[in-house]
Amino acid sequence: MKKLKRSARLVEMTHYLLTRPHALISLTAFAERYQSAKSSISEDLAIIKEVFEDEGIGDLNTLAGAAGGVRFIPKYRKDRALEKMAGVCRELEQPERLLPGGYLYMTDLLGEPRLMQEVGRMFASAFFDRNIDIIMTVETKGIPLAYAAAQFLNLPVVVVRRDHKVTEGSAVSINYVSGSTKRIQTMSLTRRALKEESRVLIIDDFMKAGGTIQGMVDLLHEFRAVVAGVGVFVESGEVDNEERLLHDYISLARLTEVDLRTRHITVQPGNYFYDSK
Amino acid sequence: MKKLKRSARLVEMTHYLLTRPHALISLTAFAERYQSAKSSISEDLAIIKEVFEDEGIGDLNTLAGAAGGVRFIPKYRKDRALEKMAGVCRELEQPERLLPGGYLYMTDLLGEPRLMQEVGRMFASAFFDRNIDIIMTVETKGIPLAYAAAQFLNLPVVVVRRDHKVTEGSAVSINYVSGSTKRIQTMSLTRRALKEESRVLIIDDFMKAGGTIQGMVDLLHEFRAVVAGVGVFVESGEVDNEERLLHDYISLARLTEVDLRTRHITVQPGNYFYDSK
Repeated sequence: MKKLKRSARLVEMTHYLLTRPHALISLTAFAERYQSAKSSISEDLAIIKEVFEDEGIGDLNTLAGAAGGVRFIPKYRKDRALEKMAGVCRELEQPERLLPGGYLYMTDLLGEPRLMQEVGRMFASAFFDRNIDIIMTVETKGIPLAYAAAQFLNLPVVVVRRDHKVTEGSAVSINYVSGSTKRIQTMSLTRRALKEESRVLIIDDFMKAGGTIQGMVDLLHEFRAVVAGVGVFVESGEVDNEERLLHDYISLARLTEVDLRTRHITVQPGNYFYDSK
Repeated sequence: MKKLKRSARLVEMTHYLLTRPHALISLTAFAERYQSAKSSISEDLAIIKEVFEDEGIGDLNTLAGAAGGVRFIPKYRKDRALEKMAGVCRELEQPERLLPGGYLYMTDLLGEPRLMQEVGRMFASAFFDRNIDIIMTVETKGIPLAYAAAQFLNLPVVVVRRDHKVTEGSAVSINYVSGSTKRIQTMSLTRRALKEESRVLIIDDFMKAGGTIQGMVDLLHEFRAVVAGVGVFVESGEVDNEERLLHDYISLARLTEVDLRTRHITVQPGNYFYDSK
């Protein structure tokens, strides 16, 4: 790379850091990349850090010493996340979203990459300190959420399949009972997709009683892996606590009321914004 | 937003532009955001433009006049994309990827968000001028590729399902014949997911004879929508031209040889890097 002026270097460094979240970059690497003294690089990083933190883009953590460097941790300020999710809740309350059986149509929202990025950054902000190795979801609608969170956490993704495909190689399958419909279903995960004793973050788009997520937890046991966190985009609040299979999770929105007759839907921000955990 | 010095403003503007690809941002909006004169904003943009173009991050197109502004078009320099894909091809050639039936295990690569981002930027670079309204893929493994391309093209994504789900509302289903296995399969798409006469970019992870993609094309006809482009991550070169159902597509890699006995696999960069289209 050719030697840049400070102004150009700030632009390039900002791009470099934003595309490498959670990666430790040594001052030496930056000094070589920009053919500049470490003292100049440190000054640049101080400017970037201030903007990132003031604007709620994330933290820039500096590690001192010979093995030192800098690490960009994407964040989403909770007050701004709440503001964003309040808008999403209003959209989810549109009566035309109501489907037969009391389900809510949200495929269009899950198809908006910019919204997925925002939600991914919220999950990244909620789970950044959980020491996670890999993110897991089940096909199909949780996939964009899992990848968006993974992008900001710099982690790989593994997708649990509803059926076993030849293109996945040998797999472990389990049966589980869907909490709300009480039907027995199957899910499977490729053997080579998950290392033993991994710490796993489970992400999904919707949770009712939690049967599907409990199925993923059971599947993880087969791999001797550990649940490091559970995050759902929307949870149904129409489940009483006894019926709920899972209690330790973060939700970004909560469907509190669906009236099939009047087509009135109420969606509120999820427990992430209210619980003290 | 508080008034920033030029150095801090450059950092903030870089982040602002990078997270809003293909959006037209007026100079007035920037001038108000940063409480700065348009002349200062123009100077900042000139610096950012030079870095983005020199480093192959993308183009910054300036539109003059009253309705003018600036638009960030993410790009991937073809020589660098080829270098990246050559490395991916070496990874795909590892003998342990060979599965029964001559399939190739690539779930791990598709689970790496950073690689998906790179591939998404390649697709965005290949299709940025096709006047696309929406990106379509079929579950499951094409989904991260479609979202990554969508992120850089600032477009929504629609996912074709293998079966019809209650959470999707009313849908159009078609039967199609898988080109390689000759089996009849079903795919369906929610009615409300696609506007009539949309221009659609089809993205998928793997193409053999092209039966699945041809199925998506047929499905689009039901919506009176138009195919604006087809992009696949890996195509199988083990199909002769007569057997191939689809001819106008871009591939990033090409599986040219699979020897089940010696477990020798050959993968080369795809037609994107060689064809003159």
